[in-house]
Amino acid sequence: MQNLMFRYAVRSDLPAIVALLADDEKGKTREQISDPLPELYYRAFEAMESVSSDSLPNKYLLAILDSEIVGCLQLTLIPGLSRQGRLRAQIEGVRISSHHRGKKIGEALILHAIDISRALGASLMQFTTDKSRKDAHRFYERLGFVSSHEGMKRDL
Amino acid sequence: MQNLMFRYAVRSDLPAIVALLADDEKGKTREQISDPLPELYYRAFEAMESVSSDSLPNKYLLAILDSEIVGCLQLTLIPGLSRQGRLRAQIEGVRISSHHRGKKIGEALILHAIDISRALGASLMQFTTDKSRKDAHRFYERLGFVSSHEGMKRDL
Repeated sequence: MQNLMFRYAVRSDLPAIVALLADDEKGKTREQISDPLPELYYRAFEAMESVSSDSLPNKYLLAILDSEIVGCLQLTLIPGLSRQGRLRAQIEGVRISSHHRGKKIGEALILHAIDISRALGASLMQFTTDKSRKDAHRFYERLGFVSSHEGMKRDL
Repeated sequence: MQNLMFRYAVRSDLPAIVALLADDEKGKTREQISDPLPELYYRAFEAMESVSSDSLPNKYLLAILDSEIVGCLQLTLIPGLSRQGRLRAQIEGVRISSHHRGKKIGEALILHAIDISRALGASLMQFTTDKSRKDAHRFYERLGFVSSHEGMKRDL
């Protein structure tokens, strides 16, 4: 797609990102959309910025089609000791606008996140996805991901 | 256990942590133990420190019994936008020394990580665990974790 580009989110993108997060079967009940956007999203964005750098980002990556934000994912590079100090790239909150699905934008966004992660030295990408999202699993398997692990969660 | 205490790792703990990471069926082929420890572990530790703070740690938490390091886990607090800016606590690299299993040290270490994460404002703890580690799944289920997600990975 000629007019598809990617960039990291800035603060003024937050309303569009939260709208995308809510444009989803599970997300629609989890997010709180209002105008102005609730301050808690801005605080969370500032927290992300406080632990993010160019070499070790914790940022939202956006897919932009004809100047419209049509997709997003949170990309977090996590340094650690295991596997000889392997740098992990983790993704979260992957969303494509319901008006723009079926155009391979999600695939392009993931591949762009992979390119960034490789360039930063990561050798593994990981994420968890709800077991009920069967279509998503097939999508990721086509992109080379393997369901090798259980994703365990606990509310605190 | 009266003499069990917990603290975050410092640089001089790295040889003991890597020995723990290698003291595991999967870890034993993944790590590289030598004296001195390979420099790549020190570089990874410095990368962790560069994105870690008291309020948003990315640190190894250690379990120490009678002055000996007997357990570890990597605790990473990940701020994000989804679920109304929910702060996530992620754990990775959980190990208990093979000489000290069956003493509930792992349970105490996880519960301590939960206490820290709650105090820092996290409302969710998450991790992935290899599907072949059936004993680990039962251990975590007893501690309230649910296998609600697929943990998908891809080498880069």
